[in-house]
Amino acid sequence: MEERRINWKDLYDFVKRVMMRLNVSAEDAEKVADNLVLSNLRGIDSHGVARLQRYVNGIKTGYIIPDAQPEIVKENAVLANVDGHNGLGQVAATFGMELAIKKAKDSGIGMVTVFNSNHYGFAGYYPLMALKHDLIGISMTNAAPLVVPTFGKNALFGTNPIAVSAPTKKNKPWVMDFATSVVPRGKIEVYNRLGKELPEGWATDETGHVTRDPARVLRNLAEQLGGGILPLGGAGELYGGHKGYGLGVMVDLFSAVLPGSNFGPFVVTKKDGKTQFPRVGHFFMAIDPDYFVGKEEFKERMDQYIDILKNSEKAEGENRIYVHGEKEFEEHERREKNGVPLDAKTVESLTKISQEYGEEIKFLD
Amino acid sequence: MEERRINWKDLYDFVKRVMMRLNVSAEDAEKVADNLVLSNLRGIDSHGVARLQRYVNGIKTGYIIPDAQPEIVKENAVLANVDGHNGLGQVAATFGMELAIKKAKDSGIGMVTVFNSNHYGFAGYYPLMALKHDLIGISMTNAAPLVVPTFGKNALFGTNPIAVSAPTKKNKPWVMDFATSVVPRGKIEVYNRLGKELPEGWATDETGHVTRDPARVLRNLAEQLGGGILPLGGAGELYGGHKGYGLGVMVDLFSAVLPGSNFGPFVVTKKDGKTQFPRVGHFFMAIDPDYFVGKEEFKERMDQYIDILKNSEKAEGENRIYVHGEKEFEEHERREKNGVPLDAKTVESLTKISQEYGEEIKFLD
Repeated sequence: MEERRINWKDLYDFVKRVMMRLNVSAEDAEKVADNLVLSNLRGIDSHGVARLQRYVNGIKTGYIIPDAQPEIVKENAVLANVDGHNGLGQVAATFGMELAIKKAKDSGIGMVTVFNSNHYGFAGYYPLMALKHDLIGISMTNAAPLVVPTFGKNALFGTNPIAVSAPTKKNKPWVMDFATSVVPRGKIEVYNRLGKELPEGWATDETGHVTRDPARVLRNLAEQLGGGILPLGGAGELYGGHKGYGLGVMVDLFSAVLPGSNFGPFVVTKKDGKTQFPRVGHFFMAIDPDYFVGKEEFKERMDQYIDILKNSEKAEGENRIYVHGEKEFEEHERREKNGVPLDAKTVESLTKISQEYGEEIKFLD
Repeated sequence: MEERRINWKDLYDFVKRVMMRLNVSAEDAEKVADNLVLSNLRGIDSHGVARLQRYVNGIKTGYIIPDAQPEIVKENAVLANVDGHNGLGQVAATFGMELAIKKAKDSGIGMVTVFNSNHYGFAGYYPLMALKHDLIGISMTNAAPLVVPTFGKNALFGTNPIAVSAPTKKNKPWVMDFATSVVPRGKIEVYNRLGKELPEGWATDETGHVTRDPARVLRNLAEQLGGGILPLGGAGELYGGHKGYGLGVMVDLFSAVLPGSNFGPFVVTKKDGKTQFPRVGHFFMAIDPDYFVGKEEFKERMDQYIDILKNSEKAEGENRIYVHGEKEFEEHERREKNGVPLDAKTVESLTKISQEYGEEIKFLD
């Protein structure tokens, strides 16, 4: 198979139809499609439709219940704890973020945790929802264990991302969205496909030493032989690896320890050879700046901060300082116009799904 | 001057008396003393009494108003925005965290921002306050610009720390507290005093290139010649420097853009040669786990997570995995018993203050 391009609307439609074939309601299928396709539009291909096969497998294997509906189990005016009932992550997460937004509009802040969920797509999706209401948005999720703690040998927690958004008036909104590890697993996979050595300090091998061999890291992770991805800040404490390790645990704390979901090494779909619910946990928050400095003033202040960062002097040899979210908004515009590029592996997996479910997929070229 | 040891109670008493000489009320002087001395007890000497001289200078120069009292300017059941009226950071911050704790006890969460403040000591102090009430605590503050954005030449924001605490039943509480830069300025100062080269990737020079010369970095920062400390993740994007840059801006967003305080490059005590209020901003939050999984269950789950991390296999050559806060609790016990060690420079500065204000300081040896 070769690389292809596809119109985002056709891609959205395909994902929706496939989900519906798997007993997902039209409404919920749209949530999954919107999340995956927006990830591709924004250039975050690791969390886009490349994941569709895993969702299909999850439903077929039984650890994702396609028609499960989220349920509020505790709630007051500003907070809620939601049981995802092991359904699609996007369904429980969209429900959670919408609830946080509603509470923030009514009371200034809304904080919602979700337990018993699954992979929820790209973390930035949910803060982007808050922007539509001129709110600050926050989202975190835990994930399958891939990251080693400082001085540890085994991967004990996930790449646990943090995403935060802030509305602006003139500039594109500020949207930060990243794994709390040095890199996400997808980056190691890219190096492996290209046959390139890893930069020193991304990952460790089964002895706990830093390794530059991407194939070894991926095999060790898949077979749980030890080693894994290093936390942001790298190996040891010299460059602040303990800080990334702390952030990873912090995301688990808010996303899973607090709501009562699986945390750390327990976020797995298989135990003793048997399939189980991974019970992923999420955290969502929305804040209305009107309860603080004021909505308009907040947006103007964000613009001012962004302008200062972007217009400040560049380091020698550099010609641009980015602000968070900027690259993604630009990519979104390009891909909306020119189509979404899909790598050969993703084209292959989508074609296979297309054949399996008899749902046509139309590429641009 | 030489290194000395001092009993923490005598140190507390000294700080309190000096503050009172400077027109700080007994109650407020105790807040400053408690904060600085606890930092030393926990082994965070960079934020302990070594800072007293700066507080004294701030009051004398006029950018810290010694008898200013914090005032709530906006408030509802779960949130508040507080004007620090340019008083001591510890006074406004303790007020802010107490308010967040009260709200969390009443409604599950409390979120308080503070504007028009000054340096508030070590960030972990405020989450530690939340632990006394079995709450999760969060604190962030912005600070004077020392950190360069990814691909940038100039220091545009502070080492902006994040601190989070979580209560436990059996283990010491989990307390994360760190600068969002690779290292705080204090570490660069230590390398400078020891005449050691910096590790590659801590700081950049006035051209924006990575430098290993600590004296050059400190001089450039003091004279605003360009360059500065790198964000967590280091230079460029290869090791996630853009993530640390994002975290630094995020702390500014919550601590200062939101409440309406100075942010980024504006957090300075001098402008065009004239003294000004730095208008530092802080963020505090407290969360009651009873509104989520339940207080007892939360604490047991934190214990379980901590046990898993600590008891897991070590990387080859390592014999211990730490959890956040553990080193500090151990140091606290040691220093409470054996006295607080003070380096020569701190002894000199405290002795000078002692002479200036006629307040005796008693060292152990």
